[in-house]
Amino acid sequence: MTVEKRNAFYAQSGGVTAVINASACGVIQTARAHSDRIGTLYAGRNGIIGALTEDLIDTSRESDADIAALRHTPSGAFGSCRYKLKGLDKNRAEYERLIEVFRAHDIGYFFYNGGGDSQDTSNKVAQFSRAQGYPLTAIGIPKTVDNDLPVTDNCPGFGSVAKYVAVSIREAGFDVASMAKTSTKIFVMEVMGRHAGWIAAAGGLAATTPGAAPHLILFPEITFDEGDFLAKVDACVQTHGYCAIVVSEGLRNAQGQFVAEAGTRDAFGHAQLGGVAPVIAQLIKDRLGHKFHWAVADYLQRAARHIASRTDVEQAYALGRAAVEMALAGENAVMPTIVRLADEPYAWEIGKAALSEVANVEQKMPRDFITADGYGITEACRRYLRPLILGEDYPPYVDGLPQYVTLKNLAVPKKLATGFALA
Amino acid sequence: MTVEKRNAFYAQSGGVTAVINASACGVIQTARAHSDRIGTLYAGRNGIIGALTEDLIDTSRESDADIAALRHTPSGAFGSCRYKLKGLDKNRAEYERLIEVFRAHDIGYFFYNGGGDSQDTSNKVAQFSRAQGYPLTAIGIPKTVDNDLPVTDNCPGFGSVAKYVAVSIREAGFDVASMAKTSTKIFVMEVMGRHAGWIAAAGGLAATTPGAAPHLILFPEITFDEGDFLAKVDACVQTHGYCAIVVSEGLRNAQGQFVAEAGTRDAFGHAQLGGVAPVIAQLIKDRLGHKFHWAVADYLQRAARHIASRTDVEQAYALGRAAVEMALAGENAVMPTIVRLADEPYAWEIGKAALSEVANVEQKMPRDFITADGYGITEACRRYLRPLILGEDYPPYVDGLPQYVTLKNLAVPKKLATGFALA
Repeated sequence: MTVEKRNAFYAQSGGVTAVINASACGVIQTARAHSDRIGTLYAGRNGIIGALTEDLIDTSRESDADIAALRHTPSGAFGSCRYKLKGLDKNRAEYERLIEVFRAHDIGYFFYNGGGDSQDTSNKVAQFSRAQGYPLTAIGIPKTVDNDLPVTDNCPGFGSVAKYVAVSIREAGFDVASMAKTSTKIFVMEVMGRHAGWIAAAGGLAATTPGAAPHLILFPEITFDEGDFLAKVDACVQTHGYCAIVVSEGLRNAQGQFVAEAGTRDAFGHAQLGGVAPVIAQLIKDRLGHKFHWAVADYLQRAARHIASRTDVEQAYALGRAAVEMALAGENAVMPTIVRLADEPYAWEIGKAALSEVANVEQKMPRDFITADGYGITEACRRYLRPLILGEDYPPYVDGLPQYVTLKNLAVPKKLATGFALA
Repeated sequence: MTVEKRNAFYAQSGGVTAVINASACGVIQTARAHSDRIGTLYAGRNGIIGALTEDLIDTSRESDADIAALRHTPSGAFGSCRYKLKGLDKNRAEYERLIEVFRAHDIGYFFYNGGGDSQDTSNKVAQFSRAQGYPLTAIGIPKTVDNDLPVTDNCPGFGSVAKYVAVSIREAGFDVASMAKTSTKIFVMEVMGRHAGWIAAAGGLAATTPGAAPHLILFPEITFDEGDFLAKVDACVQTHGYCAIVVSEGLRNAQGQFVAEAGTRDAFGHAQLGGVAPVIAQLIKDRLGHKFHWAVADYLQRAARHIASRTDVEQAYALGRAAVEMALAGENAVMPTIVRLADEPYAWEIGKAALSEVANVEQKMPRDFITADGYGITEACRRYLRPLILGEDYPPYVDGLPQYVTLKNLAVPKKLATGFALA
């Protein structure tokens, strides 16, 4: 039996992470290992935009060593984008264009590495190509620091942010404890998670002994109650001499406004963008008088490959590999998932979800992961989160700095006469 | 010949660092190795305040394992303080009290671990005890993330902040490069250094290849020129597609105001405290229209023991050890220093400075360490900084988190009938 050999396309979508390139590494190495079935693996320059504009990268021009180095390189090596394909009813031209580009380059495999929107896109691409009679295998690969995809037990990218946040608040907590007698008594660390408190919750992992930081966590799921919060801060300073706080960027007040935007105005009277940490810190200063410091980790948290979770790296890689293996096994319109087998000792395996199950469903944090008072995480939450930050996976260093790879990213000659105007 | 055996006192002063406890480890382990000469080593709870209030910690109650763990624990294990002793003419009572406490506990060795102010204090304590006929050996141990002590080639604490800043801007730079096509084009990272640009300069170490982040550094030494800066940012985005910026918290405008305070007002019209990064980011958005992200690392940078420089850890430890050895060798009113023997391969040894040389002298960054245009570092600067971030020194991890020690810090029974009211 001869098996048809076709080319493949891989693209990264949405906000990048410390480990999305580990998934890319899994995809590319596995494709290379199956060169009898998969010809050239093309990557989209800047994600799906690269497919729409026929701006393809020839990954076969990259050395094995450079592809291996993707495993320890944060960010999106081929460029990512925030560009959501519209529905088939709204912009059929985008889907037609994708098929046109895929057909021109004999692309039979479509691997799309992203969050919920991207899984939705993959699903639509699978449906459309089927309807058009164009043979295409579409496989999603999960990625999101927000940990908000359904079916999969967790999302690659999240574990490393979680580890960064837990390590950072532990370290800052030690610092503030040292200074509290005569100086800083309040430390506020702002973390990502506009809609869900997964990342903020991860900060809670640092508090493994009584009285350890963080003392309070402000979740987007819990409406900010200024009076109650200040009372908690006051009690904490009375008891421990200081108070270390993790606050989610998505914290909202009773009016449903982001606290980050409700508090301050710039010199022109505009609501200031970003920065709930300084708002919370200043509130404490104004009302309780304590000296404060605050930090906003922003991209540092999701790019922090230097302190990535080994579990996260391994899972990201395994999901990339599984995506290719599923494609070769004849699957279509699916996404490999992480299935948890045991919490302690942690055990997991690769599972599978239909893209239709995953697309546009947001996994919320269960209310019973947050303590009754709304400022901490429960034992159930710890049990869930703990394995995800297990292990270290240090990148190589030269001259004191991590050695991350920048690929050549050589362009594939265009075959189509027409361009494509992005919507 | 019988040698007198006396107790010792050690205290941490000012802002803590990722490696000041490594110096403490060096002091305590070396003192324990010389138990024929040094009796009990007492630590001041919350620094010099512990001496003034006779709140001493008995370090002999800590296990060898816990003392060893100080080497990889950030922050100040005995508590630090921001409390500067006044001059002898202004508050003689403080010096008299120190001698009273030292005499009550037969303390013959005074080790004070801090910055310029602390070296000044050590020097005054040495002078005063001599004048009073109280036999005391006073040795300073350098520490400051600001790297602003004279004589010593560099200060423990700085190398680890430098490494954190360089690693972080490299990682964030990779992230922004991935996103720039359709999303974030500007990233601004704020770092410490109110008066000197050493830490900001360290960010420049990340730019080892053409076009790599950071593209621009804003130093406290260079007056902020808005128009010139915006032109530079614009050119950078044109050339590279994005722009990654390191800004020192100490950046000032032509009027000499901190840019952090000049730009924004809170809802009540007060100048907002802290945060030059959002001011710079918003300025770029308003004038050039680019989407931005910003980060303020704050304490995370100086507490980041997880990514400490091995060079820094080794030097911090060696300086602690040298302090005790100098005391035992009969030195007084001195501070061990780092002497650079070679840049490449890096070689250093311990030297010695008189406290009178060190006290109240601030080491500024040479102008020729900053490029002519004011936005980058020169090769001379790289040559100086590069060795200081060399090597990693990872702490042990349990359950995915670094294991930092919290000491028992048991109080020594008071011997004096009187307390002491702090000024």
